[in-house]
Parts: sequence; C-alpha cells; structure tokens
Amino acid sequence: MRAHDLVTAVPAVRLDSPAIEAARLLASRELPGLVVVDDRGVPVAVLDGTQVLRLGVPAYIQDDPTLAHVLDEAHADVFLRELGDRTVGQCLPDEPDEVDVVSPTANLLEVAALMARSRSPIVAVVDPVQGLLGVITLATLMVRVTA
Amino acid sequence: MRAHDLVTAVPAVRLDSPAIEAARLLASRELPGLVVVDDRGVPVAVLDGTQVLRLGVPAYIQDDPTLAHVLDEAHADVFLRELGDRTVGQCLPDEPDEVDVVSPTANLLEVAALMARSRSPIVAVVDPVQGLLGVITLATLMVRVTA
Repeated sequence: MRAHDLVTAVPAVRLDSPAIEAARLLASRELPGLVVVDDRGVPVAVLDGTQVLRLGVPAYIQDDPTLAHVLDEAHADVFLRELGDRTVGQCLPDEPDEVDVVSPTANLLEVAALMARSRSPIVAVVDPVQGLLGVITLATLMVRVTA
Repeated sequence: MRAHDLVTAVPAVRLDSPAIEAARLLASRELPGLVVVDDRGVPVAVLDGTQVLRLGVPAYIQDDPTLAHVLDEAHADVFLRELGDRTVGQCLPDEPDEVDVVSPTANLLEVAALMARSRSPIVAVVDPVQGLLGVITLATLMVRVTA
C-alpha cells in the first residue's frame, strides 16, 4: 500500500482566509488539521488542530498558560473572538515549521515516520506534476496498520 | 464553562498494557490520544495519537524517515507487528514529557493554552480527590469555542 491509496480530499485554507473560518472548518468537519495553500494552490503549511487552536490563543498566554486562570469564565469561553479579522497568514509563526508532505508513492512506514517525527496527525500528499492531492490522517493510517 | 463540563470518559491504558493493544484502541475508537495510568490509576503520560504511532516506528527510522523508503511495500504495511509483546511502558521515551493535566475547574482558555503549548489534542482532567475524571479532546473544545 502506498500514500496515494489513503488520500482523503479536504478543503484547504488560504493564507488570506480569515483565521476564525479555519477554526470553524476544523470544528465543523472534526478534522485533525488543515493544509494552508498559497494563491497558486501550493501547500505552505500543514497545521495540526492544536496549531489552528493556537492561532487564537494570545501570545502572553501561550508563554504562560497559568495567566489564563485569572480570566473570568465568560471571557475565557469566547477567547477565539479576539481573532477578529486576522488572516491565517497573519497568525502563523514567523519561523514556519517544515511542511509535512509525502509523495503519493511513499510507503506506510514513511508516512508513519513523518507523522511521528513532526507530531502531526495530518500530512499533505503532493504529486510533483498534479500538485496537492489531499491529506492522510492519522485515523486513516491507524486503521490500516492495525488491521 | 469549565473543564469538568467538557469531560469525556475514555478507557485508559496501563504501563503494562501491550503497546499493540494501545494502538488498536486508538484506531478502533478513532481517539486523538490515550491516557496511560500506573497500577493505582494515576496518569503517568498523556500520549497524542502520533506518539502512540511512534511506539511502533523503529528508532533508526524515527531518526531518519527517509530510510523507510528502501523498505518494500509489504513490510512497510505491517511495521506495527515489530512491537511484538512490548508494553506501553517499555516503548515510552526515557525522558517522559510533562503530563498534560488540567483541573476540573480550569476555564476553556486554560485548556486551549495547554493544548497549544503541548501540541496535544487530548488532555487529562484530574480532580485532586477523585483522581482521573476523563479527557478533553480538541474536537470537543473546538466545537464549543467556535459556536
């Protein structure tokens, strides 16, 4: 079995998509993560779900999560509203991670090793000619390799 | 809203559980991760799904995923069998990560900040008296905070 056998199509988000829409897409589809593409459709980032969530966590609280404790419950419930109109691109870290991409011909251990090393439950499958084919999720891979 | 409002009960795995069973549990329940408990039921690790997968990826391939490429497809498909009889405890890294735990009274931003910082889509909810109450998953949190 090869990577192309496990590909799932998912909607990609663009660098200029509103970050709040990315969060809603993740929530409504129960996706483990999202692929961010530039305006030519080329993947520029693969964000696992916690990284999408992180887009909306204020920097000072990322640095020291205990500071969140002093926030009252009502404000803590709606922290994502602070995202306002910011785009996905504006919320990405200045030093982006390596983009988690596999070739359609990668074997399952290559896919597993990439997920394990990058701690990402989603990797993009990119063909040299056709471009982004879709993603492989950890759930799909786990079902195959434990069968 | 507080952490205790979002708790889901999940089966914990023990340090002496076979690692292959942990992988199968993750796959069959489509869980984002697992809580590992000691023989008193106290959480000693919270593993996200990629860390459970990692239990079965040989160390030399974790160090250099490109080495997996030379494996033939049939062997790559069944790499998890290499786990044999090893237990979860035997597969954990020598220097364990911090255990991702929140108090039942934590607010949602505290939960989000912990997930974002630890890059874990699952955190354990532990009461000082009652012990492990269950977990909060990223999917559950995302639905709440994007509503």
